[in-house]
Amino acid sequence: MFAPLLNDTFIKACWRQATDHTPVWLMRQAGRYLPEYCATRARAGSFMGLATNVDYATEVTLQPLERYPLDAAILFSDILTVPDAMGLGLSFAQGEGPRFAKTVRDEDSVAALRVPDMNQLKYVFDAVTSIRHALQGRVPLIGFSGSPWTLACYMVEGGGSDDYRRVKELMYSRSDLMHRVLTVNADAVALYLNTQIQAGAQAVMIFDSWGGVLADGDFQTYSLAYTERVLSQLIKTHDGVEIPRIVFTKGGGLWLDEMKHLDCNVLGLDWTVNLGRARQQVGGTSGGPGKALQGNLDPNVLFAPPPIIAQEVIKTLESFGAPHQDPNASGPSLIFNLGHGISQYTPPEHVSTLVHTVHEHSKAMRARK
Amino acid sequence: MFAPLLNDTFIKACWRQATDHTPVWLMRQAGRYLPEYCATRARAGSFMGLATNVDYATEVTLQPLERYPLDAAILFSDILTVPDAMGLGLSFAQGEGPRFAKTVRDEDSVAALRVPDMNQLKYVFDAVTSIRHALQGRVPLIGFSGSPWTLACYMVEGGGSDDYRRVKELMYSRSDLMHRVLTVNADAVALYLNTQIQAGAQAVMIFDSWGGVLADGDFQTYSLAYTERVLSQLIKTHDGVEIPRIVFTKGGGLWLDEMKHLDCNVLGLDWTVNLGRARQQVGGTSGGPGKALQGNLDPNVLFAPPPIIAQEVIKTLESFGAPHQDPNASGPSLIFNLGHGISQYTPPEHVSTLVHTVHEHSKAMRARK
Repeated sequence: MFAPLLNDTFIKACWRQATDHTPVWLMRQAGRYLPEYCATRARAGSFMGLATNVDYATEVTLQPLERYPLDAAILFSDILTVPDAMGLGLSFAQGEGPRFAKTVRDEDSVAALRVPDMNQLKYVFDAVTSIRHALQGRVPLIGFSGSPWTLACYMVEGGGSDDYRRVKELMYSRSDLMHRVLTVNADAVALYLNTQIQAGAQAVMIFDSWGGVLADGDFQTYSLAYTERVLSQLIKTHDGVEIPRIVFTKGGGLWLDEMKHLDCNVLGLDWTVNLGRARQQVGGTSGGPGKALQGNLDPNVLFAPPPIIAQEVIKTLESFGAPHQDPNASGPSLIFNLGHGISQYTPPEHVSTLVHTVHEHSKAMRARK
Repeated sequence: MFAPLLNDTFIKACWRQATDHTPVWLMRQAGRYLPEYCATRARAGSFMGLATNVDYATEVTLQPLERYPLDAAILFSDILTVPDAMGLGLSFAQGEGPRFAKTVRDEDSVAALRVPDMNQLKYVFDAVTSIRHALQGRVPLIGFSGSPWTLACYMVEGGGSDDYRRVKELMYSRSDLMHRVLTVNADAVALYLNTQIQAGAQAVMIFDSWGGVLADGDFQTYSLAYTERVLSQLIKTHDGVEIPRIVFTKGGGLWLDEMKHLDCNVLGLDWTVNLGRARQQVGGTSGGPGKALQGNLDPNVLFAPPPIIAQEVIKTLESFGAPHQDPNASGPSLIFNLGHGISQYTPPEHVSTLVHTVHEHSKAMRARK
């Protein structure tokens, strides 16, 4: 049904297999820093108009691939589609973050929460299938969702927050209600990701964008445990092909020892983490088990002049260290990415330097004896 | 000149000496959650009107001590007084964060930076002396400053930021300019803290509020190295009394191994850090060297009902573990605090539960055999 995969570097790196270069993609790679994205968005009228229209979503997903030789595509969508489908009424005011018309803060609103009917999210799955076709096997397509905790943050706060006061108040005051929200979220996220896989996603990623705001102990209870609940329900193969899973907790560097036990293949890291140390901690050894790592350049490096961008990319690759090259065994591997979504103010030509340097320098590292 | 210190629990804990209870104070303990603070601020007309008036600053510094048996007072001031004295023009618009009239982003503005004349900050030192007198030795007075990096964030951004784009752009594009800003800041901060010590501060704390936004490697280069530069210039004793130094890097939990080598006595920690692990990492052993730890309850716990607050305080104390009790040797010690400033929305009576529980439970832990 779909074209065969021509560039499997990203997928191989997810499985900790040797590759001839370090694969690279960028969180939010289809986004406002690209003039062609802004043009499509203008035609769509609004962010949700863009995200809910299959043709537009396909178009913008492929835009960065036309500019840069990226090794993966990621579904263009929003992390808040699931709570929107739960009936909370997502909107984006001009120049502001997401807003929900309804919040989830009391007994009644928590009791009313249900795993949404996936028909409500048909536009997402249709986009996945459409993008997969449009890719014609050039690179694999990553599907994604927010983590149960991250979705809960927005659902309780009603939007973004700088102190997470309301969601933590609920968590500390009524942990029973918080556990119920997270349980529904986890089951919804699992179903959502499974349906993306059935629609054509070749890898899935869970964005635990706000796991890092939790206290030690609370992270394990309210974020990690529910990410685990999602993972335990995910289908492992589709059409006879295994589907790798990526978990990214922004600000989660202190909990790598715990995240090591997650039933996933790749751990995303932000820029506060030393890649060499993380490799030692969770990357495993050649022939042994371990996680592939994904990350972790500070997106603000892309505001520097190209020679400095190249230098910082090289520093990141070198901090991970020598690539595993044994074709007969799995071993530590890196998927190059930013440590967070690319900024809307990024000069697009600077991204070329990043992608080019990752490819060239990672090949040079493999040629070293 | 000043009254003798009646409650030296905090000071002893800074020096890792045995105490009969765990001392407690709260970052931003004189603040908007207290109605009496809001009343004084209303009389002062503005935040800077409050901070620059010796009588008002003295009054609000003492307010939380009237309500709660806290073990330390902290100078009421702002972390941005130093760049204000450099001529950048600090102001606080109603309901918003700090703003500078001038920013520091180019060759000329960086070249113009100077360590300010301390006469420009006389209102701070006068407040220190006034507060110290008003305290009458009840508890020690902590002086403080923002770290060189944290000050630079505001100076380059011109105010708060959610992505630190401008300061990082300068840092990555023109590291020479950034180093110059940080050098001036470090020398200014050292002079500022020394003058606070001479005016009566009995301990000093460096708030590296934004150190945690830096990438691994950059933190060491642009934040830690300049905190070190401050520490190397601080006077160690005043009037024959040794002055303990506290360094708090919000989001710095991944770099404790590096921070262990700072020439300071106490490391502040936010709630993402496990106190038991931090104690093992940097707390040292009885009779050996190490750092006292300060922290680390999530301020949002204070929105829960009092029984849950008590339970979370106990969990924090227990995670640090059994207090060192040898009167003849130094050893691991904890100063209880929040992991960040107290929220303006905190119910004041909830703070009573926190302080009471720290005192009672930490005594009970010492009575255990």
